[in-house]
Amino acid sequence: MPYTPLAGVASLSRWAVAWPRFYGQKPGMTSSPLARPFPALAAIAGVRIGTATAGYKRWTRADVTVVELAPGTAVAGILTRSKCPSPEVELCRARLAGGRARGLVVNAGNSNAFTGLTGREAALAQTAVAAALLGCAPDAIFCASTGVIGVPLPQDKAVAGVTAAHAALGTADFEAATIAIGTTDTFAKAATTAAMIGETRVTLNGIIKGSGMIAPDMATMLGFIFTDAVVTPAFLQELLARASAGSFNCITVDGDTSTSDTVLAFATGAAGHSEISGWASPGADAFAAALDDLCRQLAQLVVRDGEGATKFITVTVAGAEDDRAAHVIAMSIANSPLVKTAIAGGDANWGRVVMAVGKAGEAAERDRLSIRFGSTEVAAGGMVVPGYDEAPVAAHLAGQDVDIGVDLGIGPGRARVWTCDLTHGYISINADYRS
Amino acid sequence: MPYTPLAGVASLSRWAVAWPRFYGQKPGMTSSPLARPFPALAAIAGVRIGTATAGYKRWTRADVTVVELAPGTAVAGILTRSKCPSPEVELCRARLAGGRARGLVVNAGNSNAFTGLTGREAALAQTAVAAALLGCAPDAIFCASTGVIGVPLPQDKAVAGVTAAHAALGTADFEAATIAIGTTDTFAKAATTAAMIGETRVTLNGIIKGSGMIAPDMATMLGFIFTDAVVTPAFLQELLARASAGSFNCITVDGDTSTSDTVLAFATGAAGHSEISGWASPGADAFAAALDDLCRQLAQLVVRDGEGATKFITVTVAGAEDDRAAHVIAMSIANSPLVKTAIAGGDANWGRVVMAVGKAGEAAERDRLSIRFGSTEVAAGGMVVPGYDEAPVAAHLAGQDVDIGVDLGIGPGRARVWTCDLTHGYISINADYRS
Repeated sequence: MPYTPLAGVASLSRWAVAWPRFYGQKPGMTSSPLARPFPALAAIAGVRIGTATAGYKRWTRADVTVVELAPGTAVAGILTRSKCPSPEVELCRARLAGGRARGLVVNAGNSNAFTGLTGREAALAQTAVAAALLGCAPDAIFCASTGVIGVPLPQDKAVAGVTAAHAALGTADFEAATIAIGTTDTFAKAATTAAMIGETRVTLNGIIKGSGMIAPDMATMLGFIFTDAVVTPAFLQELLARASAGSFNCITVDGDTSTSDTVLAFATGAAGHSEISGWASPGADAFAAALDDLCRQLAQLVVRDGEGATKFITVTVAGAEDDRAAHVIAMSIANSPLVKTAIAGGDANWGRVVMAVGKAGEAAERDRLSIRFGSTEVAAGGMVVPGYDEAPVAAHLAGQDVDIGVDLGIGPGRARVWTCDLTHGYISINADYRS
Repeated sequence: MPYTPLAGVASLSRWAVAWPRFYGQKPGMTSSPLARPFPALAAIAGVRIGTATAGYKRWTRADVTVVELAPGTAVAGILTRSKCPSPEVELCRARLAGGRARGLVVNAGNSNAFTGLTGREAALAQTAVAAALLGCAPDAIFCASTGVIGVPLPQDKAVAGVTAAHAALGTADFEAATIAIGTTDTFAKAATTAAMIGETRVTLNGIIKGSGMIAPDMATMLGFIFTDAVVTPAFLQELLARASAGSFNCITVDGDTSTSDTVLAFATGAAGHSEISGWASPGADAFAAALDDLCRQLAQLVVRDGEGATKFITVTVAGAEDDRAAHVIAMSIANSPLVKTAIAGGDANWGRVVMAVGKAGEAAERDRLSIRFGSTEVAAGGMVVPGYDEAPVAAHLAGQDVDIGVDLGIGPGRARVWTCDLTHGYISINADYRS
């Protein structure tokens, strides 16, 4: 089995050049104009990484990743709500009940979704091999696969790949893993933060892949969070669900939802502080805030790699009936193809924002509605503001970061979501993905 | 006030050339490749049409239409569910309660939506003038406007336009009216059918405009149906709601919903047969079937003019839990940007259909799901069919009419909806609409 350990890639400029070599879905693909440099991620005690080339496609890049986790590692997860999930999602859902993890296996290039019993058997076989190699029960191995739907994961390649990646444990860093889990991603996406638990500093690292098919209630994303904090599985699950609600569930690229969406958080406990088991535990607030921040950073990176994206859009809704209604309205705006194409064209077409508010189905009063682009109010009281000057709005829309603000004027509800514009690039990427 | 009566345009070939002159939003715009020739529409007793140029934009085309309806004409309507509707929609909603219409005024080039009191006053003034000219109460005048949102309808132009169009009553035919109500439409869309009510033949003509912002529960569409049948307003409303459920609510172009969507049906009663007042009335079934057929034709024409459309897609869902669930799943497929871009690229990417089924949130069992493109089954029992041959599927997808079939295998629910592919053309049209 060929195995290609990947050296870290130091800078974004080299990144843009090196990318097609690893992600070769599209020859000549360049990084998103909204890309961010890969951050410096410290190692996390209790986490060892190996990658290898299983060869799920005709490429030489690493496409299988194994992560060894120290005994006792707590695990939590948020999985797609798709009614047609992949066998990997089903395995994770069942195994999360145990609350503990010893290993993670990720395949890129084949999602193994909608592949019937053959696919399920391949996932079972691959995780069984990982369990044998790591010396643990199969239920302690978590897994995820991403790529084309409908082609069964080739069991021989999957088993050989996981064996090779295990043999390479300790030779790969978080950046190599981020590259190895990517598919149509145009840049490697990761974030890091830290929290003080009493006198102890804990680290939280997150890596994520995903660009298209990003939608509310999860996305075509695989996200993995690693920390050395000591947290009970039940409280880690509560914190992850909370953090996801304000991050992964607040982004959209195209409104589609995948069969494989997975976010897993692993806490190795190596930091050795007193266990965080609930909000009353010392350091619970600090850890929760750090996890919230990490998830928001990761979610925004996914939007920044939205297929064809040229602008990062923040939609803020205030004055709605309640927070739930505000979220629905914000997502209606963020998902509207007409709003997203207008932003792509630098067009201050606030009428389309009105349309999106109106179609959301939540309480709204046309004559109380106000809309701003950037810091410029363009409409209020049911019509365009007197003496409206489009020049500052056009200048704002010419930038890479666009803010759309809506105030319903009828209640206390607030929400903020993130999306990107809809461009020719999206069509080009998706009209010919499998070829 | 300049007034330009339009001659009928006889053939589709001339159409393609003549279009930009009337619809001049985009210089050089050509008809949709899915366009249909304008059908021969008979005159309907009790209906007289005039058009004129109000000059809502810098153009010389007709942009205001007046229809005079014989006294006693029954009216029914389906209006947008947008929470931010135009004042025209609000006027229609209030006036439908009366059940009778004497006139219709339609403006193109300005939707008058989100224009506050100024816009409402313009709509009231314009319909008041129409009422005075037609010698009826203002409540018997129905109205609709389409075009850019947020610019108040200029009251002086609106009043002068309606006056000129009234003066031209009888000089315009249905085709001229169809052209005059259009905006980004690339071809004139109309349909006709007939029904026998006892010994009496009644005619049903429909004209419709709309291309983008087409979504479930109505669309950026204005549709007007005229018949000489004798029907009570209440039963006409029941029949129109029924027909809309199987037509206008079964189409989608981009999932967006406009602030102005309106379908109105007018029955002049000139045919003189015994009144149809319920299902027990002679001819009720025949009339209902004709109305269903007419609405389905009109709805499909709107999809055929979907912005950037190159393929007409029929999505059929069977075996769902019930008809409602089937409709939700069919719309999830039809609205999925990933499905629509795949079809644009001629890519038999059935995995994206699985994704769209999964995200719909309705009951589905992955291992009972089957999918076909055209007449070729591609997936069944949770995986690709044995010996799957992509050649016949690729041939089917190369055509202009694409059929996607899904069988959930769990119940009796069925639905059929129509959409179009998502192409670079959509982006081009919408990223620079206002400029």
